[in-house]
Amino acid sequence: MATWFQQHRDKFNRALDACKYRYAWSAYPESPSSRIHGTQAAAAGRARFEALLNNDYPLTLPGEMGRVGAEVSPYTGAALGIRYPKVDIDAIMSAAQAAIPPWRDSDVETRVGVCLEILERCAGQLFENAHATMHTAGQSFIMAFAGSGANALDRGLEALVYAYKAMADVPTDADWQRQFGKDSSARLTKHYKLMPRGPSVNVCCATFPLWNGYPALCASLATGNPVIFKPHPNAILPVALVVSVCREVLAEAGFSPDLVSLVTDTRAQPATTALLQHPATAIIDFTGSPHFGQWIETHCRHAQVYTETAGCNAVVMESCQDMAAMCRAVAQSLCQASAQMCTSVQNIHIPAQGIVADGRPVSYEQLADALVAAVEEHLAEPRQAALLCGALVNDGIYATLEKARALGDQQGQILRNSTPYAHPEYPSARTATPLMIALDQSQQTLYSEEFFGPVSFLIKGPSAESCLAIATDNARRCGAIASHVYSINEAFLNAAQDAFNHAGVSVACNLTGMPINFAAAYSDYHVTGLNPAGSACLTDLAFVANRFRIVQRKTLCTASGA
Amino acid sequence: MATWFQQHRDKFNRALDACKYRYAWSAYPESPSSRIHGTQAAAAGRARFEALLNNDYPLTLPGEMGRVGAEVSPYTGAALGIRYPKVDIDAIMSAAQAAIPPWRDSDVETRVGVCLEILERCAGQLFENAHATMHTAGQSFIMAFAGSGANALDRGLEALVYAYKAMADVPTDADWQRQFGKDSSARLTKHYKLMPRGPSVNVCCATFPLWNGYPALCASLATGNPVIFKPHPNAILPVALVVSVCREVLAEAGFSPDLVSLVTDTRAQPATTALLQHPATAIIDFTGSPHFGQWIETHCRHAQVYTETAGCNAVVMESCQDMAAMCRAVAQSLCQASAQMCTSVQNIHIPAQGIVADGRPVSYEQLADALVAAVEEHLAEPRQAALLCGALVNDGIYATLEKARALGDQQGQILRNSTPYAHPEYPSARTATPLMIALDQSQQTLYSEEFFGPVSFLIKGPSAESCLAIATDNARRCGAIASHVYSINEAFLNAAQDAFNHAGVSVACNLTGMPINFAAAYSDYHVTGLNPAGSACLTDLAFVANRFRIVQRKTLCTASGA
Repeated sequence: MATWFQQHRDKFNRALDACKYRYAWSAYPESPSSRIHGTQAAAAGRARFEALLNNDYPLTLPGEMGRVGAEVSPYTGAALGIRYPKVDIDAIMSAAQAAIPPWRDSDVETRVGVCLEILERCAGQLFENAHATMHTAGQSFIMAFAGSGANALDRGLEALVYAYKAMADVPTDADWQRQFGKDSSARLTKHYKLMPRGPSVNVCCATFPLWNGYPALCASLATGNPVIFKPHPNAILPVALVVSVCREVLAEAGFSPDLVSLVTDTRAQPATTALLQHPATAIIDFTGSPHFGQWIETHCRHAQVYTETAGCNAVVMESCQDMAAMCRAVAQSLCQASAQMCTSVQNIHIPAQGIVADGRPVSYEQLADALVAAVEEHLAEPRQAALLCGALVNDGIYATLEKARALGDQQGQILRNSTPYAHPEYPSARTATPLMIALDQSQQTLYSEEFFGPVSFLIKGPSAESCLAIATDNARRCGAIASHVYSINEAFLNAAQDAFNHAGVSVACNLTGMPINFAAAYSDYHVTGLNPAGSACLTDLAFVANRFRIVQRKTLCTASGA
Repeated sequence: MATWFQQHRDKFNRALDACKYRYAWSAYPESPSSRIHGTQAAAAGRARFEALLNNDYPLTLPGEMGRVGAEVSPYTGAALGIRYPKVDIDAIMSAAQAAIPPWRDSDVETRVGVCLEILERCAGQLFENAHATMHTAGQSFIMAFAGSGANALDRGLEALVYAYKAMADVPTDADWQRQFGKDSSARLTKHYKLMPRGPSVNVCCATFPLWNGYPALCASLATGNPVIFKPHPNAILPVALVVSVCREVLAEAGFSPDLVSLVTDTRAQPATTALLQHPATAIIDFTGSPHFGQWIETHCRHAQVYTETAGCNAVVMESCQDMAAMCRAVAQSLCQASAQMCTSVQNIHIPAQGIVADGRPVSYEQLADALVAAVEEHLAEPRQAALLCGALVNDGIYATLEKARALGDQQGQILRNSTPYAHPEYPSARTATPLMIALDQSQQTLYSEEFFGPVSFLIKGPSAESCLAIATDNARRCGAIASHVYSINEAFLNAAQDAFNHAGVSVACNLTGMPINFAAAYSDYHVTGLNPAGSACLTDLAFVANRFRIVQRKTLCTASGA
């Protein structure tokens, strides 16, 4: 019978090739269309999701001490009522450690094959996982299926490619012989063994629970480390579904299911710091707030730490070919997932004298009006607005909007107020449209803070060059995951690309015709690690190469002389 | 004209192949024989070394504030009288940072080519560098030429191979296009740029100044980072000679020589902590004491840290084929470089009931006597003793010997006392022969401490299994860089290899006929990073992959729809 590695070999080879040349490719279709998945899959997935509600989640873990779970749907306002195992951290850690030896001693292809099978089965549960993501993280169904679903799975496969490449770089054995001095020589056989570091804690965020979840899982598990998922207390289900798949696949392969486990908690009784500071924790992958990310980097020096946090993503507008397309593209970023993405735009830098668009001068005011109008256009059709904006992950976003609105009233100008929009399907959905505030460039302390949610600033600068200088300075100091420039002036465009890159930030130029928040697996490197928005690229050799170490044994075969 | 990368391409390709298959290969001959180097090289090298004595070292650096230097030869007891530039740390750091842009913006082959040329020219100065190493670190000339010379250069080339592989894994550009939804599509060109982290401080140790020096130089410089060498105050010259070569090659290539610079100090006024804690320091490579290594890991969280410190290297003796060869091999480790190597053996674990050797039972006492006799044999011929033992790096080794001797008198049994040996060429040489002390396995607190220098313990355990258990436990808790087992019992040998490997330690079995301290470039992975002896393998992807980061720029070519 073919091994899983052999079964998935073609797909894996295609992923290896895509990573090498970084063209557009996907292993997992991002559309939930019945033309791809058949007519039954959508309904079956929904039914599986609904069967989980108001029930004990079907999972048994070591060290269980009862059940816990307080997830509330951002769409219905109702509790999901799912009760997850609550575990003793020492017990789950011991179980993870006890599971290591056979996994560590298996070969690279076995471990990669298990990860490939896990990804494949996760692809088979994207429908229920999209419902789970929708009713925890607040994403629209289509977004949950694509972004937190297929696209995240692609990033997982991509991380697996890098883990494989790093491990394949180490040969399993060698034959070594040489002369020493005139009279003696020795011949040795050498064996090189990859050793895991130990338990790897994967802290998932509330808004995109699996974006880093799949890559960190694949990077750590393939290299021999057990993985303990720690989902956000309001976004457990999407992660628990993955944990169930992992444990099922591991058990089928003859390994301990405790190689992948789950620690759940509530906001009232958090378990994360105890888990991260556990002396056995060897690796930490974290997605979440910059504040907690910095706490981890300071307090968890016993572990390898990989973070993705957040920053103040900026757009600099200098000129453009097609103003309508530019405004549509940027406005979409302000709306998409209610700007709760790590790539959402917050700061839009515009020169006071306006820009040249479509060959004509356009004033600052005209451009601001056009951006507001483009947002309105995205929101005009209720079903479309709901697909694009989704819901707010928690009530804290309303507080952020309130704070920003007060700031706009007092120190800036509110260009567009935020109000809830009426969700066509879920009347109780927690929603908000974009709040857009005009500020002056001198008010840097206001806009160099991240406002997580649908808050954006139109920042008037004395010149395009000054807008660029401030945007790159902000990125360097406050972090950025995505940055944008619109310019048809070649000299300015080159200067802008250099300025962002030299600030340790990636930059996109003149994007239209596509969601500008989109980060393409196998093509876009993610976090640069050179600014405060985190250290984890997700998909490069640096993300994987230090998750395992090399030990060797060498044995004399023959010796002569001295 | 061929570029340096093209000129050295054949050698580099051979190094790539050797790293892949890890057979025995060397790019640099380790013998100083005139048959290899011609009849002039040795004398010319010596003359160049002697011309440097009692002089200002010919090097001008940014931020000079006078001269400093207090090196004393362990062979003559006389001051070398070489005065090095003393620099202002802020100034040298600013100069390093200012030198980055053109180097960062050059391509991978240019940077690797410069590093290859540096290694080549360093190979051309191995004679003077061996004299420099001898009269600072105390190594014998032959050891200095091979170990701290050619073998270390090989490790530098090996690190360069890994830096190249990690960088070559990132393509320079990509063409990306895809459909979004039914109606829109976008085509982007993408460029990926490697970015250095920033100034890389290379702290070299007193006994083997360039062992980590060349690898850390190549790993950091090739990936775009400026390198600031910080040699030990009594072993500046070997490092300064390399810095001079680097600056010369960089200038010839049209780059700023300040990409490689030097900070010197004295023991009375050390500069290391200020340099390491400088906010601009982005990478630290450290070789030295576990104590200082731990200080760095705790206090320099702003930098990527790679350490090689030390541990308590052990031998477990269970049985052997050829007792004379085994004793000769282990005794050589006790003598070689006066056991001041990171791979020197300290703890020799022997079962109380003795071992089976050459098919006959040998008592513990007989084996202990044979080990002492084997040491005597290595020391019998004065020229041979001098070649093997060299001199002591500093007076502190005498203090260590005194401490160990007192311990042996009070709590163990001195099997062989240490005395200075008479160096045939340098009557004032600071020398010591091996001190060998018998302890009982129960005295673990005594032998689980590193005694740096020619101190070893014969540790009597109740059984071979118990010896193994204690040796691996020690390695796990106190660190180890080299471990040895002698056994012809296949079951025991397998158990021992597993036990050491699972403790995160590499192990060598039944080595005879070669210097067992020898670590082979392109074949032996060095520090495992899984025990307290350090984190830097030197020559794997983990050593290089996080010294640079990736930033990208993507630009819309064509878009349609949306």
